Amino acid sequence: LAIRLVCSGFKVVVGSRNPKRKASLFPAAAEVTFQAEAAKKADVIFVAGDLADVLVGKILVDVSNNTEINQSKESNAEYLASLFPACTVVKGFNVVSAWTLQSGARDGNKQVLICSNNQEAKRTVAEIAQVMGFTPVDMGCMSSACEIENMPLRLLPAWKIPIFLSLGLFLCFFTYNLIRQVIHPYIREQKNKLYKIPIEVVNTTLPCVAYVMLSLVYLPGVLAACSQLYYGTKYRRFPDWLDQWLQHRKQIGLLSFFCAALHAGYSFCLPLRRSHRYQLIETAVKQAVEKKMNIWVEEEVWRMEIYISVGIIALGLLSLLAITSLPSIANSLNWREFSFIQ
Amino acid sequence: LAIRLVCSGFKVVVGSRNPKRKASLFPAAAEVTFQAEAAKKADVIFVAGDLADVLVGKILVDVSNNTEINQSKESNAEYLASLFPACTVVKGFNVVSAWTLQSGARDGNKQVLICSNNQEAKRTVAEIAQVMGFTPVDMGCMSSACEIENMPLRLLPAWKIPIFLSLGLFLCFFTYNLIRQVIHPYIREQKNKLYKIPIEVVNTTLPCVAYVMLSLVYLPGVLAACSQLYYGTKYRRFPDWLDQWLQHRKQIGLLSFFCAALHAGYSFCLPLRRSHRYQLIETAVKQAVEKKMNIWVEEEVWRMEIYISVGIIALGLLSLLAITSLPSIANSLNWREFSFIQ
Amino acid sequence: LAIRLVCSGFKVVVGSRNPKRKASLFPAAAEVTFQAEAAKKADVIFVAGDLADVLVGKILVDVSNNTEINQSKESNAEYLASLFPACTVVKGFNVVSAWTLQSGARDGNKQVLICSNNQEAKRTVAEIAQVMGFTPVDMGCMSSACEIENMPLRLLPAWKIPIFLSLGLFLCFFTYNLIRQVIHPYIREQKNKLYKIPIEVVNTTLPCVAYVMLSLVYLPGVLAACSQLYYGTKYRRFPDWLDQWLQHRKQIGLLSFFCAALHAGYSFCLPLRRSHRYQLIETAVKQAVEKKMNIWVEEEVWRMEIYISVGIIALGLLSLLAITSLPSIANSLNWREFSFIQ
Repeated sequence: LAIRLVCSGFKVVVGSRNPKRKASLFPAAAEVTFQAEAAKKADVIFVAGDLADVLVGKILVDVSNNTEINQSKESNAEYLASLFPACTVVKGFNVVSAWTLQSGARDGNKQVLICSNNQEAKRTVAEIAQVMGFTPVDMGCMSSACEIENMPLRLLPAWKIPIFLSLGLFLCFFTYNLIRQVIHPYIREQKNKLYKIPIEVVNTTLPCVAYVMLSLVYLPGVLAACSQLYYGTKYRRFPDWLDQWLQHRKQIGLLSFFCAALHAGYSFCLPLRRSHRYQLIETAVKQAVEKKMNIWVEEEVWRMEIYISVGIIALGLLSLLAITSLPSIANSLNWREFSFIQ
Repeated sequence: LAIRLVCSGFKVVVGSRNPKRKASLFPAAAEVTFQAEAAKKADVIFVAGDLADVLVGKILVDVSNNTEINQSKESNAEYLASLFPACTVVKGFNVVSAWTLQSGARDGNKQVLICSNNQEAKRTVAEIAQVMGFTPVDMGCMSSACEIENMPLRLLPAWKIPIFLSLGLFLCFFTYNLIRQVIHPYIREQKNKLYKIPIEVVNTTLPCVAYVMLSLVYLPGVLAACSQLYYGTKYRRFPDWLDQWLQHRKQIGLLSFFCAALHAGYSFCLPLRRSHRYQLIETAVKQAVEKKMNIWVEEEVWRMEIYISVGIIALGLLSLLAITSLPSIANSLNWREFSFIQ
Repeated sequence: LAIRLVCSGFKVVVGSRNPKRKASLFPAAAEVTFQAEAAKKADVIFVAGDLADVLVGKILVDVSNNTEINQSKESNAEYLASLFPACTVVKGFNVVSAWTLQSGARDGNKQVLICSNNQEAKRTVAEIAQVMGFTPVDMGCMSSACEIENMPLRLLPAWKIPIFLSLGLFLCFFTYNLIRQVIHPYIREQKNKLYKIPIEVVNTTLPCVAYVMLSLVYLPGVLAACSQLYYGTKYRRFPDWLDQWLQHRKQIGLLSFFCAALHAGYSFCLPLRRSHRYQLIETAVKQAVEKKMNIWVEEEVWRMEIYISVGIIALGLLSLLAITSLPSIANSLNWREFSFIQ
């Protein structure tokens, strides 16, 4: 943070218990001195843990993070504010990684979430973040500090259930298809079809998973409508399990799309395979030896044409759904447009 | 709204003409009382329709919606402000659906558009929205209320003309290709080629539509340049039809990309079809019976290699254009970069 | 700008040295008069170059642009502020093209970057931008003016090195594959394989480029970790070349994905080609004439099945990486989630 502040043209004073040992770590432009000394000189003070006494009337920026979610009842920033009632505490910069601070916001999240009960202090810190190349986001008053402190600890919580669900479904359908396409022909006719496992078995499993997941996206909406009709009101809260389900629809739908897209990729590759080539040549040779000229089966032709045609159209429509779930697209649609597309 | 406010930790008083009947609908934490009573107790008042007399000096949040665009000359919020000159009126929360309010912003648009002539009141309401998990967007002063009220009624207005245009083009080219590939061979040679309709006829139609749409993206720019050269100035407004056309270029271009992507999908599937397999085997059997060994036609080979090669490169470039039209990408490009890519 | 302001309902007075000649260019609603006259009448003044004397106490909006990056040491806006100490200068509207100003923000970037040392003036200009249909972005105080003035002159600076790098790699691998697949068979066996150039040679070149680029994404992270282990501290700055390399990882990775996606497209098309068809028929005829029935090579079958299977899975994972690099997705991930996915 000190390195980045110096790079952005701010005058930085670093406070330390042992300034001589720490001095080598910081750029020459940053003055390294004792904590009390440093706190006296600065207008805005970034606090990571240790505290000093000379802070009256200054802006304290709490950049601390927790090690687990909801570590204590009170947020670090609120605790800091209660220790120094004469200071203005601002929560910020805790969601940014050390490397991003040092090198500037390039990849990943450029947002610095800021909250404070003092508008003026919040604006000062927001302007510091702006000059450093980040996007300050006003998260309102101090009561949001707890949320901001929990944020860096999150690890895709909304994705956990949908991912385990799709893995479970994949395993079930994969086992079924493995038995049906590989093990059964082997037991009954002693045919070695093991080569089908990496592509054909996977490729018949993926659309099954995609179908079930897609139906799980639309089912809770139907259940919710039924519940509303049954109770005769739309103001009654849904039961918790239905509420949770309704809130995971986006993730379930995107995993369904991912399976469908993989299925398309595998299908496009089917005629590339050696096994396809060998089967084709074998059939041709057999027909030629028997001098059978007409092998055209109209029904088979029509079935395949319609399968593929419907598949491509379905993937096209599903990709529209996936695109509208991108945050920047969703934010440009109103509620009516969003539900129209869905 | 009341449910969500209670969940976000606010103290909520619900005003009703008949508090006893309504009480069961709200969470226990929300106090339900008579309207005048409720209005007295609150600092910020959300108004959906009915009004009370005790509102002097309070912040009124107008959450009402219209049933049609530009219903009356004045916006609801401005009408409310004229009825209660002693209050500060803030427009907000009307673009959010009831379910999103209840369950929190998960899918779709998380933005709450807010406008008011009073900065302080606007900030108070923005902080409420923030704590509730939405993204408040400052839409400026009260004159934006009309726009905010019209927003939830919009249904993809910019897409209507481009979609009908592409459907029209699709129908024309489809009819032409149907006559050429199916009806003509049937009448002249009594050959049944009906199986070509779902894939081959559609697949030759899609690139025609994509080409014409893509040319319609770049044509108005050329016309605009010609008009500027003709009149010798770039400060003259373009005629209305050209202006409209220029403003629909993005949508026309994206539909062109959608057709091109579907065409790619259909083409990748061509060798998957039974009909392709049968034709291949038939040709092989015929050649084998006649013992003709050399069927290589260099010209045909080259034509196909170049077609496919150019097609893939074109789709790659078109997908770059489509990606830069995503709002979040477009917002990170300056005007010079955007026109360079286009 | 004047046309758009009139359209958005503002009262506009245009100042000119020669009002009579200019009047025809502006809409009837805009009053065109002499500069001094116009400056007297207005509250907010947009300045493009020429200046007047009657500006005391007004808000001056500097919309000027530079013709080259860092043209002078001081930004235009700061120079303007030094000339008129009695005015409040706001930098803004310089990043918007003339056509976007005239027709409203449809395609491309809708953001208007604003900076000023005066909060009140900044808010006034932000509200004007809002009413005109743009998204005002607060860029902090006047020291950001230089950055805002440089912005429209940028032309994808972060992409230059990665693009030249991938073009260079493509050329090297293309030459190698051309010699190996076309020139060598011609010299040794006089076989004409020129038809392989547009698809097969390109298709074996693309994954090589994609692999090398992908390794160049992950290599600098390893080097950085080694450097930290060697020096025993994570607070030491990396050498400049490593820093630059770390900052270009996103672009290198996206180009790697682009090559991989093109490779998938080319591969899907392989069985579409005439040459594939002819080779298949020739083999079948040869086998039929020699009455060889069994051409199945188990090893070849397995090799191809595994190649394709791994390829599709790799492309699926790589597309997840590409999606998380979209700005709107990256902004919704915290640092821990982002590095988990990477």
